[in-house]
Amino acid sequence: MKKQITLKDIAKELDVSISTVSKALKNSDEIGHDTKEKIQAFAKLYNYRPNNIAISLKNKRTRNIGVIIPNIVHYFFATVVRGIENFANAHGYNVIVCVSDESFDKEVINMEMLANGSIDGFIMSLSSETQLKNDYNHIREVMDQGIPLVFFDRATDEIDCDKVIINDREAAYQAVNKFVNSGRKRIALITSENFLNVSDERAKGYFQALREHGIEIAENLVLKLPYIDIDEKVVQKFFSQNKIDAVLCVNEVFAVQCMRFVQKTGIKVPEDISFIGFTDGLLSKYATPSLTAINQHGEDMGEMAAKMLVEKIESEADEDTYRIEILKATLVERESTVN
Amino acid sequence: MKKQITLKDIAKELDVSISTVSKALKNSDEIGHDTKEKIQAFAKLYNYRPNNIAISLKNKRTRNIGVIIPNIVHYFFATVVRGIENFANAHGYNVIVCVSDESFDKEVINMEMLANGSIDGFIMSLSSETQLKNDYNHIREVMDQGIPLVFFDRATDEIDCDKVIINDREAAYQAVNKFVNSGRKRIALITSENFLNVSDERAKGYFQALREHGIEIAENLVLKLPYIDIDEKVVQKFFSQNKIDAVLCVNEVFAVQCMRFVQKTGIKVPEDISFIGFTDGLLSKYATPSLTAINQHGEDMGEMAAKMLVEKIESEADEDTYRIEILKATLVERESTVN
Repeated sequence: MKKQITLKDIAKELDVSISTVSKALKNSDEIGHDTKEKIQAFAKLYNYRPNNIAISLKNKRTRNIGVIIPNIVHYFFATVVRGIENFANAHGYNVIVCVSDESFDKEVINMEMLANGSIDGFIMSLSSETQLKNDYNHIREVMDQGIPLVFFDRATDEIDCDKVIINDREAAYQAVNKFVNSGRKRIALITSENFLNVSDERAKGYFQALREHGIEIAENLVLKLPYIDIDEKVVQKFFSQNKIDAVLCVNEVFAVQCMRFVQKTGIKVPEDISFIGFTDGLLSKYATPSLTAINQHGEDMGEMAAKMLVEKIESEADEDTYRIEILKATLVERESTVN
Repeated sequence: MKKQITLKDIAKELDVSISTVSKALKNSDEIGHDTKEKIQAFAKLYNYRPNNIAISLKNKRTRNIGVIIPNIVHYFFATVVRGIENFANAHGYNVIVCVSDESFDKEVINMEMLANGSIDGFIMSLSSETQLKNDYNHIREVMDQGIPLVFFDRATDEIDCDKVIINDREAAYQAVNKFVNSGRKRIALITSENFLNVSDERAKGYFQALREHGIEIAENLVLKLPYIDIDEKVVQKFFSQNKIDAVLCVNEVFAVQCMRFVQKTGIKVPEDISFIGFTDGLLSKYATPSLTAINQHGEDMGEMAAKMLVEKIESEADEDTYRIEILKATLVERESTVN
C-alpha cells in the first residue's frame, strides 16, 4: 500500500518550511506566486489529502482525545495531563499525548498525524516557537475540518475556541503586593528567555503592582534565563550588582535554583531576599527554605479542559460558541517569604 | 458507521474483567468453560476482531512509535520519553504517549487502541498492577500480530522481546558498599508499597551487600511507603524506633521527603544519617543537603529503546532474535553522604 504524503514530506522534498507548505496549500498571500504554484502542483501530483480521512470518519467516534504539550519533563504540564486523564477516563475516553518540544514543526506534524482519524478532539498548549512565529494555520486547519480544540495555559487571542487559563497577571500582581506589604521595595522579576504569553502576562502583573505602589520600574531588575542549564555566575552577578530584597520567578525551577545560588554567597532567604515562584510542584515543597509558590492547579485545569472538549465532541449543536474559563491561582505561603 | 467492539465493551457488557475477556478469547484454561463460551459467543455475535486492522495494515508503515508509561508526573519516565523522542525524531518517527497510571486495565486498553493501526511498534514500562497480576496476555497478543515491542526499566522475564534495563541490583549493592566503607552499619531500605520488579532488584542488591559485609539483616530496617502522600509521622516513628545511620531509598521522592522529615527532629544529614536515592532528578540536585543519587540515565535508556525498536521495525529478517541491553547506573556523590 502506498504511504500517504504528509506536509513534512512536501517540505522536505521542495526544501521549504512546513509553515510555507501549509500556507501555500491554503493559498495564503504570504507566499510568493512561484513557490505557491510549485507546492500546489507537487501536492496534487502526489495526491496530498489534508486529513480527508478525518472528514470521512467525522461520524465515527474514536473516543480518543489528543493532547499536545510543549514539554514532558515538566511538573505543570504533566499534572495537566493527569487531570485530563481523570476526566476522560471517567467518561469513557482514552488520552493520547504528543510532545511538541517547544518546536513549531513538531507541533504541526503531531497535529497532522493525530487529526488523521485517531482522535475526536484536541487539548493543547502552544509551543514557544509557535507563539513567537504567531503562525496558527495548522490550528485553523483542524478546526476547519470540524475537529474541536481546547487550549490550556498557553493560548492565543488569534484563535476563537474554548480556552482554560489561569489569572497569570492577577497572580503575579498579588505576589508583588505581598512583597510590598512586608516592606520590600527592590523587587526583581526572573522570567524566561523564550517568548511565552503566560510569562508576558506575569510580567504585566509585576509592572502593574510596582506602578500602583509608586515603585520605580528598573529594567535592570528583570533577568531572563533559559529553562535549563542556568549559569550560576550569571545569577550571582545579577544579585551582586543590583540591590534586591525580593524576587518573583515565573517558574519554580528558576526560583529554587536561584535561591540555592544566592544562599551560597551568604545571602539569607527570606531575611535578606524573599522568593515567590509560579508552579508549586515538588521542588517548591522540598526546597530549603521551602518556596512560597503560586499554585497553577494543573490537575483542575486538565479536568476542566477535558470537560469542555467532551461537551463539544458530544454536542449536537451546529452553531459554534466558545468560552474561556479562567481558573484562580492560589498563593501557597511557605518559608521563603516573611509576613 | 458501526463502531468496532473492544475488549472493554465485552467486559462491561458481560460484567467480567478485561483480563478474563482477553484470556477467554485466547481459550485459556484459567477461565471456566461456561464463562469462556459466553464470552466467545458474544465476541462472535458482535464481530469482535482482535486488531485485524493492524494485520491488514502490516505492510503500511505509520512511522509512529507508541509509548506506554506507568506515570507521567515522574521525572524518570518523562526523561525516558524525551530520549525516545530524540532518537525517533532524528530517524523520521513520531512518538505517541499513553499513560497506564499503574493500572492493568488502562495498559490493556491503551495497547489495544494503539495496536489498531496507529503505530509500528511499542516501547513500554509495565504498570505495577500488571507486574502484581503477572498477566501478560495483552503483550503476547500484540507480539503475535507481528508488532515489535521493547520493554524499558520495568520488564518481565515472562516475555521474550528486546529489553533495556539498568543494573538495579548492582547499583543498590554499590550504594550500600559506600555506606559500609564510610563506617555505617545500621543501614535502612526505604522502598515502595507496590510490587515492582525494579524495587525488588534493588532490595536484592541491598541484602546481598549486607550479607557480604557480615551485617545482620533486620526486617525492621525496611520501610515500605506509598509513592505519594507520605505520612510524616510514619517516617519519624521509623527513625526514632530504630537506630539508623544510613538509608537507601528506591526513588528520590522518598529520599528527599524523608531527609526533610528527619531533619525536622534535629537529626543531621549526613553527620547522623547518610542518604542515597535512586533517580537523580531535579529534586536530588536542589534538596538540602543535595542528595547523593543513583542516576538511571533515563534519556540514554529512551534513546536505546527507540534504536532497538526502529531496528526491529525496519529489519527484513524473519527470525526473531531478542537482546537485553543493560545500562550502567552511576552514583553521583553530593552532600547527603560522607566519604
